Amino acid sequence: MKKPLIFITNDDGVWAKGLQSIVEVARRIGRVVVIAPETPQSGKAHSITMFSPLYLNEIKKEGDLAVYSCSGTPVDCVKMAFDHLLADDLPDLTISGINHGSNSAISVLYSGTMGAAIEASFYGSPSIGLSLLDHDLDADFTAAAEFSEQIIRKVLASDIALPLCLNVNIPNLKRDEIRGIRVCRQNRGYWKETFVCRQDPRGKNYYWLTGDFYNVEPDSTDTDEWALAHGYISVVPIQVDLTDHRQIGELAQLF
Amino acid sequence: MKKPLIFITNDDGVWAKGLQSIVEVARRIGRVVVIAPETPQSGKAHSITMFSPLYLNEIKKEGDLAVYSCSGTPVDCVKMAFDHLLADDLPDLTISGINHGSNSAISVLYSGTMGAAIEASFYGSPSIGLSLLDHDLDADFTAAAEFSEQIIRKVLASDIALPLCLNVNIPNLKRDEIRGIRVCRQNRGYWKETFVCRQDPRGKNYYWLTGDFYNVEPDSTDTDEWALAHGYISVVPIQVDLTDHRQIGELAQLF
Repeated sequence: MKKPLIFITNDDGVWAKGLQSIVEVARRIGRVVVIAPETPQSGKAHSITMFSPLYLNEIKKEGDLAVYSCSGTPVDCVKMAFDHLLADDLPDLTISGINHGSNSAISVLYSGTMGAAIEASFYGSPSIGLSLLDHDLDADFTAAAEFSEQIIRKVLASDIALPLCLNVNIPNLKRDEIRGIRVCRQNRGYWKETFVCRQDPRGKNYYWLTGDFYNVEPDSTDTDEWALAHGYISVVPIQVDLTDHRQIGELAQLF
Repeated sequence: MKKPLIFITNDDGVWAKGLQSIVEVARRIGRVVVIAPETPQSGKAHSITMFSPLYLNEIKKEGDLAVYSCSGTPVDCVKMAFDHLLADDLPDLTISGINHGSNSAISVLYSGTMGAAIEASFYGSPSIGLSLLDHDLDADFTAAAEFSEQIIRKVLASDIALPLCLNVNIPNLKRDEIRGIRVCRQNRGYWKETFVCRQDPRGKNYYWLTGDFYNVEPDSTDTDEWALAHGYISVVPIQVDLTDHRQIGELAQLF
């Protein structure tokens, strides 16, 4: 039987430690192709590159592993894989990550990691976005990689209906402190920003965007935020119908 | 009674004709503050700027109109408005657009126009993303502006529950060819890309991302694509819970 083809991308860039850690895991399971952004793309959400062309650079080919960088966004990387490089041998699974930092709750919408995972699901590939709650460039991915391998193997062995796109967040704990995996819904909550104002050497103000997340339902035990705060890995299945079906009736009367 | 404060942004940039056309409309209704991107931001989705600071430049102040440009994304512009410039006098309504080109169906996810409209709704502002189905820089916004004014006035006069975020798309037709306004759901369908490969002067390949939209349910009469194809303005109410609630049970058994 042919080994499964696993496509990997991320938003921290092709040299990120989190990417390397999941490539090692994936190589134990199947053939691996990486197309990851040349540069960090955190916060790039579902953006695509429209006003400049894209470069694709081969970095490494050895055995069942091929690694490329792409000059675009995480979603560009996925499109480059499914509509160009791997169009004749489509991936059996897409992994985005392991991200350095959380993508729980509404961060799913700002996240380049999840943008890529969502895009892959449009091509009929099961996809998993993986994030560790540690922004450190040198974060310890040991436990995250171990649990990620469990999740990847279960998804590959399952016959769950497609599209399947999972937003997986992993608390920054040691292996034996992690209490297990919880399937959750996306927490309601929002980011509020504080703009840090500074003056450039020419006397002009500039602003750094810095934010805090407000969990408006800390006591709801079925959300990803609750799971993470209580030592669990959170798994949220993702869909992309943004229609607020409950409002359709009332609005139809308004217009 | 104090005139309503209308905040306007877009993704085509502060100098776009579509923005100018809706500013004229909004000035007939209330006080207007514009913070729009310095440069075109099409396809920027819900992205935020994390690795560089933001500049905010005053372009014009006259009477009840103030116009600023911001060096960031459409979502950055919204955050700059609600958490900085207008934090003490929050907008009664946010408008994003009028975009040059469609943002119907799954394009809502790639769209900077809709990224901004969605972000504004997080701050409790009713918000309307407006798009005309014409990419031309010099598109004719006459009919679009007239119908947009109707929609804006109805939203301001209504007591519909918040959050309210509308994705409004307007067919590229003359005023008397437009058959009316339909409240719809987001069409299912996807973009498939064709990468146009060229060689740069140094002999290296580069790729332009070009795509086509595939409507997988052309006969469903309750979608935005159907409405637009049949001469109607489409209005889709937007929510941002990406959880696929139907998959939670099955996945809970898997993990």
